[in-house]
Amino acid sequence: MNFTIIKKDGAARAGVIETPRGEVRTPAFMPVGTNATVKALCPGELKETGSQIILSNTYHLYLRPGHETIKNLGGLHRFMGWHGPILTDSGGFQVYSLSTLRRVSDEGVEFQSHIDGSTHFMTPETAIEIQTALGSDIFMAFDECPPWPATREEVQRAVKRTAGWALRCKMKKDSGPSGGNALFGPEGSALFGIVQGGAFEELRRESLEELLETGFDGYAVGGVSVGEPKEQMHETIKLMGPLLPANRPRYLMGIGDLKDCLEAVRAGFDMFDCVMPTRNARNGTLFTSAGRISIKRTEYKEDRNPLDPDCSCYTCRNFSRGYLRHLFLSREILSMRLNTIHNVHFYLEFFRKMREAIMNGRFLEFTNRWDAVEW
Amino acid sequence: MNFTIIKKDGAARAGVIETPRGEVRTPAFMPVGTNATVKALCPGELKETGSQIILSNTYHLYLRPGHETIKNLGGLHRFMGWHGPILTDSGGFQVYSLSTLRRVSDEGVEFQSHIDGSTHFMTPETAIEIQTALGSDIFMAFDECPPWPATREEVQRAVKRTAGWALRCKMKKDSGPSGGNALFGPEGSALFGIVQGGAFEELRRESLEELLETGFDGYAVGGVSVGEPKEQMHETIKLMGPLLPANRPRYLMGIGDLKDCLEAVRAGFDMFDCVMPTRNARNGTLFTSAGRISIKRTEYKEDRNPLDPDCSCYTCRNFSRGYLRHLFLSREILSMRLNTIHNVHFYLEFFRKMREAIMNGRFLEFTNRWDAVEW
Repeated sequence: MNFTIIKKDGAARAGVIETPRGEVRTPAFMPVGTNATVKALCPGELKETGSQIILSNTYHLYLRPGHETIKNLGGLHRFMGWHGPILTDSGGFQVYSLSTLRRVSDEGVEFQSHIDGSTHFMTPETAIEIQTALGSDIFMAFDECPPWPATREEVQRAVKRTAGWALRCKMKKDSGPSGGNALFGPEGSALFGIVQGGAFEELRRESLEELLETGFDGYAVGGVSVGEPKEQMHETIKLMGPLLPANRPRYLMGIGDLKDCLEAVRAGFDMFDCVMPTRNARNGTLFTSAGRISIKRTEYKEDRNPLDPDCSCYTCRNFSRGYLRHLFLSREILSMRLNTIHNVHFYLEFFRKMREAIMNGRFLEFTNRWDAVEW
Repeated sequence: MNFTIIKKDGAARAGVIETPRGEVRTPAFMPVGTNATVKALCPGELKETGSQIILSNTYHLYLRPGHETIKNLGGLHRFMGWHGPILTDSGGFQVYSLSTLRRVSDEGVEFQSHIDGSTHFMTPETAIEIQTALGSDIFMAFDECPPWPATREEVQRAVKRTAGWALRCKMKKDSGPSGGNALFGPEGSALFGIVQGGAFEELRRESLEELLETGFDGYAVGGVSVGEPKEQMHETIKLMGPLLPANRPRYLMGIGDLKDCLEAVRAGFDMFDCVMPTRNARNGTLFTSAGRISIKRTEYKEDRNPLDPDCSCYTCRNFSRGYLRHLFLSREILSMRLNTIHNVHFYLEFFRKMREAIMNGRFLEFTNRWDAVEW
């Protein structure tokens, strides 16, 4: 992996991440493909929305169908038919948010599957092994994400543990492919560390310091949008953006509210992922250049217009709001598809235009324009 | 509408139905698009499966979103983005099978919506008005479909009523567009009559006689596969095939078991519709050249092969059985999509090859080959 900053506008950066499976132009939004599919979309549609890289989940794929199964089926890219870059979450966040925790120690985490209650033990080493078997392009280090609220002591302990685990992830990954092969092995793949520290500035700084000692290909900020007030989140964004190494990709995990993304890009972040466009689509909430739309509203019953007249996605090129409303009220599968195509396309276009604005030194103008839209 | 028989092989016919929206080569299978969408598919995919014509449901569209709404949105074709021919069921079958009947008279049927319990009154005239508003290419006459089992008297009454209603449909349709317009009006559209009569040969003959007196563009056999034994259904198929006028399309309603379709084509039927390929797809039951597959079976867990090595559909070109099993077990929307694409493609290919066999005078060979497959 290689990262180059092409243009800066204030602290906002336009860059390129080169991976063995293609370039990622930053700022970049990664649609989430939890179960080896971005919900409702096929790979061709995903590409048509302008997606350059997607995120998939180590925790979910480890539990079902199992990373060894995916490896035996040719690796995650071949499995799901997506041949662009994939970043895999380490499983840390999901182990803490989805499963029932049994025992957490410095060694690792014993947890119960949210699917069938079976017991599993995940360590930094197994997290790397799983991501290796999947054939990930960007690995994430296994971290401990404390809940909100948490005491200083709890967060402190999580920071320490995250630092130790990150080091072990690095050592494990550096020790070579763990059962991978040349076709989908880790050659050229990257490993990002995750900064924890909650709402405690000192602990955030400490967490980053520890990661820097080990050294990673990129740096992520985790433990944001876990229930804390928005102002707190923005504090963390503004604190961490400038602190993260300038010559590495900076990834703000799990944030997808577009105003938050703008704020984060303004603070120097480069990468984002969120289920917001896909989940909202399935719930009938759609993003347009004039703001959010709830497609079920009666006013759209006989509306012949596309969702967003400024949008060139498949949905907007071919279908009326009236039809989309009907599909949604009829709970048709096509409703979830067409809505997802639109929302993901809208997000990718938003990021494409944001990057263009940075390239043209007009990021402030871009920000002001979108700040005026009601989301 | 125009219908030409191009080739016969025994009683089996290869023909062409010409409609203002394109040709339909027969024998033809019509995927079912109940709510103005063939479940899970977009129009482009539908076309790619080889679909020439689809069926949509008057009853459902009348209730939701309402035929006037669809008319105001440019008619059914524009509404759903499918620009090929559409046959609309008259609503008769659904009124009897889905709604709560309130009162049936010679005038029409008062029923309660299965969606919200609201009360409606449907007559032959309103059935034609609705289909006109939708802009259907092939209208079906409003019929009374008696339940199974039913006494001779009940069936007799249904036959009489169906005949009277069919005549009124014909008169209504001939009296010109009812609120249609040139863009999606009934110019060139067809009206098919529906033969009832249940398991009573005499009543079937009587029903057909009455329809012939009125005269229709095509003739359908209804009231089959409503719960009667398979042998009874095959009796009806073998009886009616040769009796229906030779120079008109013969449509066997609601039948989609492929062996039944073979039997019916052998008896001279030309058109079919059924939810079987789409519904089975969503339940993980897939059709292949070697028979049915239940994709959830453990044996497919690490199976790298496509569903059907002989199939050229998008699903088989791009994904393994292992991936399809994973998507199904994860209840992913993409599972329903990919499975539906395959099953509909398989059906359309089956019909395409069947037609080819008839054209080449090899229908018997074709039948024997497929009779040997375990469905």
